[in-house]
Amino acid sequence: MATPAPAQTAAMRRAIQLAARGLGHTSPNPVVGCVVLDAAGNVAGEGWHERAGGPHAEVNALREAGERARGGTAFVTLEPCNHTGRTGPCAQALIEAGVARVHYAVPDPNPAATGGSTTLAAAGVEVEGGLLADEAAAGNEAWLTAVLRRRPFVLWKYAATLDGRIAAADGTSRWITSAESRADVHRLRARADAVIVGSGTARADDPHLAARVAGLTDTEVSQPLRVVIDTGAAVVKPGARVLDGTAPTLIAVAEDADTGHLDGIAPIVRLPRSAGGTGVHLPALLDALYERDVRSVLLEGGPTLAGAFLAAHAVDKVVGYLAPVLLGAGPAALGDAGIATIGQALRLEVTDTARLGPDLRITATPARHTLPPLNEEN
Amino acid sequence: MATPAPAQTAAMRRAIQLAARGLGHTSPNPVVGCVVLDAAGNVAGEGWHERAGGPHAEVNALREAGERARGGTAFVTLEPCNHTGRTGPCAQALIEAGVARVHYAVPDPNPAATGGSTTLAAAGVEVEGGLLADEAAAGNEAWLTAVLRRRPFVLWKYAATLDGRIAAADGTSRWITSAESRADVHRLRARADAVIVGSGTARADDPHLAARVAGLTDTEVSQPLRVVIDTGAAVVKPGARVLDGTAPTLIAVAEDADTGHLDGIAPIVRLPRSAGGTGVHLPALLDALYERDVRSVLLEGGPTLAGAFLAAHAVDKVVGYLAPVLLGAGPAALGDAGIATIGQALRLEVTDTARLGPDLRITATPARHTLPPLNEEN
Ligand SMILES: NC(=O)c1ccc[n+]([C@@H]2O[C@H](COP(=O)([O-])OP(=O)(O)OC[C@H]3O[C@@H](n4cnc5c(N)ncnc54)[C@H](OP(=O)(O)O)[C@@H]3O)[C@@H](O)[C@H]2O)c1
Ligand SMILES: NC(=O)c1ccc[n+]([C@@H]2O[C@H](COP(=O)([O-])OP(=O)(O)OC[C@H]3O[C@@H](n4cnc5c(N)ncnc54)[C@H](OP(=O)(O)O)[C@@H]3O)[C@@H](O)[C@H]2O)c1
Repeated sequence: MATPAPAQTAAMRRAIQLAARGLGHTSPNPVVGCVVLDAAGNVAGEGWHERAGGPHAEVNALREAGERARGGTAFVTLEPCNHTGRTGPCAQALIEAGVARVHYAVPDPNPAATGGSTTLAAAGVEVEGGLLADEAAAGNEAWLTAVLRRRPFVLWKYAATLDGRIAAADGTSRWITSAESRADVHRLRARADAVIVGSGTARADDPHLAARVAGLTDTEVSQPLRVVIDTGAAVVKPGARVLDGTAPTLIAVAEDADTGHLDGIAPIVRLPRSAGGTGVHLPALLDALYERDVRSVLLEGGPTLAGAFLAAHAVDKVVGYLAPVLLGAGPAALGDAGIATIGQALRLEVTDTARLGPDLRITATPARHTLPPLNEEN
Repeated sequence: MATPAPAQTAAMRRAIQLAARGLGHTSPNPVVGCVVLDAAGNVAGEGWHERAGGPHAEVNALREAGERARGGTAFVTLEPCNHTGRTGPCAQALIEAGVARVHYAVPDPNPAATGGSTTLAAAGVEVEGGLLADEAAAGNEAWLTAVLRRRPFVLWKYAATLDGRIAAADGTSRWITSAESRADVHRLRARADAVIVGSGTARADDPHLAARVAGLTDTEVSQPLRVVIDTGAAVVKPGARVLDGTAPTLIAVAEDADTGHLDGIAPIVRLPRSAGGTGVHLPALLDALYERDVRSVLLEGGPTLAGAFLAAHAVDKVVGYLAPVLLGAGPAALGDAGIATIGQALRLEVTDTARLGPDLRITATPARHTLPPLNEEN
């Protein structure tokens, strides 16, 4: 018997929630959630893809459902995979469990994984795609964007005053935003595969860049790869906070940089210099990170690097923490992005606003008509 | 019989709505709304103070209620006045109409007007204050602030990108914000007694500064006094758009400015120069406007003047229109406000956020502990 529409929606929404638990743990895989209803329409099993290399969501949910999966319906946020990876194809597992129907939200855009629905249908399983597709795609936006663009999804985060400053005239900035906003940034870090700052920020702040989440130890939190772009290998020195053991670290330098002082202390990636003259070639950096299985990047700036990423059309989403503070002087949140006149302005679309303590958090994505070509020259 | 509590609240809320219709028309008087219920608790009359010199809210509502006011209850947003102004005391009018009970929201802070409740009580009318006092005070915030500070209430409006810019690197800025935001600014103008810009804005934009409201002709809209601060009388020339007949205009100049070219063309106010050196003394300007019955000012900037008003602690509220646009270069929304280090930052409290088309509107007020002394030196 087909599940009634409201129950279908409820099951898929639950699967989307389960999927989100995997954020920060699954790269290079997507996050996926799965709910299995038994033949009577009751929840028999739930699962999500918990970490790269671990079982897929369907396998976890089927394991919990056991015999109750037979004749039941599976709700999966992403089309079940067809390939035999580290954990075997999920389409096969669903067929073997005797599931009668499969609803998936988003088709798998990964050429190596598609075909799952064809395999299911050939085995006599009823298959339907598209249920809550937009919601599920939003939950997987980093991975889907990365697959599409063949580079990591980049979220640029900044924290500023209402008048767009990140520090006062004398450079002091502790604290512009509230403790609530700063805790939110740590949640973003925990969901990202990598965090990037430029040498300017490394020099000014000696940042730690690990994710701290209240109630969890640093090792319980999914830590991002900490990336510092230090073209001349001139700023990050032994003893820098980013070199402690809390999380992995990568120093991105120019091909010709002298890195002797970092030997055995920090992993290094050598990159061509940017054609424009300043720093390293950002598309090459993103390529290098992609090869290291990084699918989502939190770009923490500063303003110079953020401007360069925007100029390279390599920002997919912006999160601004705006403190209700006015300064009237001091450095701006965003440096030169190659925009000279109003017609070249980068237009975004606000997708979310929230209050965090006294602050506002604004989330926005580049407007569709200004979406970038892939790997454009920096 | 006393009105039940929910009916009391409903009547007062309606009175507050009616009061708001007077915004922009009543200075130097407050906005006031009044609802009269008959002895059975049915609405018998409604009124508001429509314009300075016109009948007060109570008189308008009592006129509509006629004989039905006898034994009834009046709900007034502000304590009924006791003085004999251009239209006679309202307390007396309520007594003569035979009203049995009066609920007012906010006590009248104006020494010349208070005592209305004493007069009513002495005549045997039951009087109670405080119903929806906060809501009613918010509706009268400009007038109440002006009475308290003996200077006009100042609302600073700015329009900027997410990164705090008001124009691109080449100075172009049409348009950063949306048509919806710009229409909202015109509504602010229509509610203000005066609009102020500095000579920088006059030079760059030759602004018109009148309020245009869709569906109304310029003369149907309550037009603000257009004020340009042009210290040396060097910028506003015959033919400037601000000198057309749409709305009254005032050019504020230094005491020693040569204004021959404006003779017979525009009213002028001469003011001492600011002690700090730049421009005119802002408290003197606000005094001069107060003397001209201005109780609310919309400060439209630009950034230099806004910084000076903030440094003079002469901003009571901030409305920022933030467009989801990034520029990375160009002038900032706020210029020097005398803030050198983060500890001196002007902290505000966000009181409202709204979406206007693609934009965000953020309303904020200076945090209580940073509230200004009166008429501080500029
Ligand atoms: N409020 C916030 O959200 C926030 C966030 C981060 C930082 N900050 C503040 O920002 C300030 C530092 O700003 P910043 O702009 O100097 O630092 P930054 O953006 O972190 O670093 C800029 C530097 O990165 C290097 N770089 C490498 N490749 C680049 C490329 N392709 N394009 C551009 N730069 C490249 C360049 O130096 P080399 O080529 O010499 O390596 C460049 O000078 C600090 O005060 C920090 O506190 C604020
Ligand atoms: N996006 C927005 O919301 C917005 C709003 C308004 C303007 N703007 C833009 O802002 C730009 C102009 O900015 P601006 O800063 O040059 O213009 P401004 O703030 O309008 O004018 C500044 C000038 O006002 C005069 N002034 C008089 N008394 C003053 C005092 N006590 N303190 C400071 N200044 C005083 C000074 O010149 P004198 O002493 O020589 O008279 C000063 O240079 C224009 O491009 C305009 O389009 C944007």
